[in-house]
Amino acid sequence: MADLVLGVDLGGTNARAALVSADGVILGQARRPSLQDQPAPATLDQITSACRDAVAAAGKDLASVAAVGIGLPGIMDVETGVCFWSPNFPHWKDVPIGETIGAALKAPAFILNDAKCAAMGELTHGAGRGSRNMVMITLGTGIGGAFVVDGRLLMGPNGSIGEVGHHTVHPQGRRCGCGNYGCWEAMCARDAIIESAERKLQSGAPSTLRRAHERGGVTPAAVAEGAAGGDALCLEVLDEIGFYIGLGVANLINMLSPERFVVGGGIAQAGDLLMEPVRRTVRSRAVPLQQATAAIVMAELGDSAGVVGAAAWARDRCRDSSQPNPR
Amino acid sequence: MADLVLGVDLGGTNARAALVSADGVILGQARRPSLQDQPAPATLDQITSACRDAVAAAGKDLASVAAVGIGLPGIMDVETGVCFWSPNFPHWKDVPIGETIGAALKAPAFILNDAKCAAMGELTHGAGRGSRNMVMITLGTGIGGAFVVDGRLLMGPNGSIGEVGHHTVHPQGRRCGCGNYGCWEAMCARDAIIESAERKLQSGAPSTLRRAHERGGVTPAAVAEGAAGGDALCLEVLDEIGFYIGLGVANLINMLSPERFVVGGGIAQAGDLLMEPVRRTVRSRAVPLQQATAAIVMAELGDSAGVVGAAAWARDRCRDSSQPNPR
Repeated sequence: MADLVLGVDLGGTNARAALVSADGVILGQARRPSLQDQPAPATLDQITSACRDAVAAAGKDLASVAAVGIGLPGIMDVETGVCFWSPNFPHWKDVPIGETIGAALKAPAFILNDAKCAAMGELTHGAGRGSRNMVMITLGTGIGGAFVVDGRLLMGPNGSIGEVGHHTVHPQGRRCGCGNYGCWEAMCARDAIIESAERKLQSGAPSTLRRAHERGGVTPAAVAEGAAGGDALCLEVLDEIGFYIGLGVANLINMLSPERFVVGGGIAQAGDLLMEPVRRTVRSRAVPLQQATAAIVMAELGDSAGVVGAAAWARDRCRDSSQPNPR
Repeated sequence: MADLVLGVDLGGTNARAALVSADGVILGQARRPSLQDQPAPATLDQITSACRDAVAAAGKDLASVAAVGIGLPGIMDVETGVCFWSPNFPHWKDVPIGETIGAALKAPAFILNDAKCAAMGELTHGAGRGSRNMVMITLGTGIGGAFVVDGRLLMGPNGSIGEVGHHTVHPQGRRCGCGNYGCWEAMCARDAIIESAERKLQSGAPSTLRRAHERGGVTPAAVAEGAAGGDALCLEVLDEIGFYIGLGVANLINMLSPERFVVGGGIAQAGDLLMEPVRRTVRSRAVPLQQATAAIVMAELGDSAGVVGAAAWARDRCRDSSQPNPR
């Protein structure tokens, strides 16, 4: 089986590549600007270069690379390796990433949505290790999701499964960027945290957050910091946000019955002060049987989940295609 | 491959058995009381007898039966064929249904949750035919659910996936039988329909439903009938209920991206007058990409979905176990 595999995390700013061992250890890595305003070939060249650099940084040779996995946001066909559309690359249309990178690096290359990459990373080498049924969510500007059931990452048509952020948790809730009301991410992702804090500040409540507010704006990190220092207003915000996060977590636990529910993303760094109201809501809302099975845990791989997961995905695909009877 | 397979639908009142051909046609069937207050062996005997009767009714011999599938509500291990608990059989504990029925009928026997059986039926021979990604819900006293992704029926730990009825669609919504507020089934299953109609009647609105109300109680069927006759109050009820059904349908479409969304169960018999507000809500709430892929259709097999689906499940399990490399 493939021993060394390259994992790539293609963001709007950088393409990060890492050479990853079979047990998920990063042996060498490199970054290149992803040149999001240039045509696709320029970006693909940057990926290739970052990959070569990562292999060199590990003191290895390209010939030792068994496969390449590339994670990016967007809509894509994982079978053909073609990305139809990516929010980070406005000029892209039907870009044959798998084929191009595969030819350049002389190894089979596979693509996958970035939220699913992070889940593959946590499943294989992180907080989901050893589980056969896992849900992972990434709390940030929005909420990304990925589902593993009976040991398999669920894909659906064009890898479209897992769009958890726009499920309604309150029909008359906060307006969402998508135009609807009460979408899960509208109630508890980045903007909801900021709005909740600003609203409480405007009502005149005392808070250490007022300085951040006056300096130009409250951030989720400032709220988390305030809460950690015992600031009552910040704690109230996390309580309110945690309730809504918990509603969606309970919904997913009810429907998908995971053994492990992994929470990642920047917002999750608020830690237990946020997770306590999440867990409280799940206890009161999830069906007892599913709830008893599901452990809610924090992601472990941080911002390496993308490259480690992309490598795990490529490894998985190689294994699948070497089986006599793949399904 | 198995040509003739027995399918059993074990309800609280009757055990219904049918001999089903490979193309889903019922060749013969029979019913026996399911004896829900007696110990398990009595019920298993009734299943065996109903199976023998169904084979005889088809003019066939037991030796021609390749497998038996048994659907029932409850918590069970589909691998071992043991049912741990069933709401219909209060005396049951760890009943080895598969082994017992298999030995009695001299054919491999497989068990499955009844909501998943109905989905297997619709997937193989009904409204989901030809799709690889399907969600089915059954609207009745509660809401049952089953998910098919990438051609596979999702199971999860002990077949526990698909508990859709208790996902929250309104945090301060109607109280649910489970103790929480705003569960999907609390907002739009049987009791919600009755309560909505009764509330509107109490406010004095004119309606043909008043007679049913005075005769002892409104039923969902009476509401559907009134709506079909143009009764404004009944139409308002279906509109309100359809909105909440639509919220949950949109949530499932967002998360699971099915090509086919199959709606079954008694409540669904209200037809287009109910489905129109459902579709309207989905159009405004589901993510455009997933929505474009998903066709919302009515179940086709009616109350035969259980026996036909149980047979399809048994057929599927035989095929899986005859593969050199089952996963």
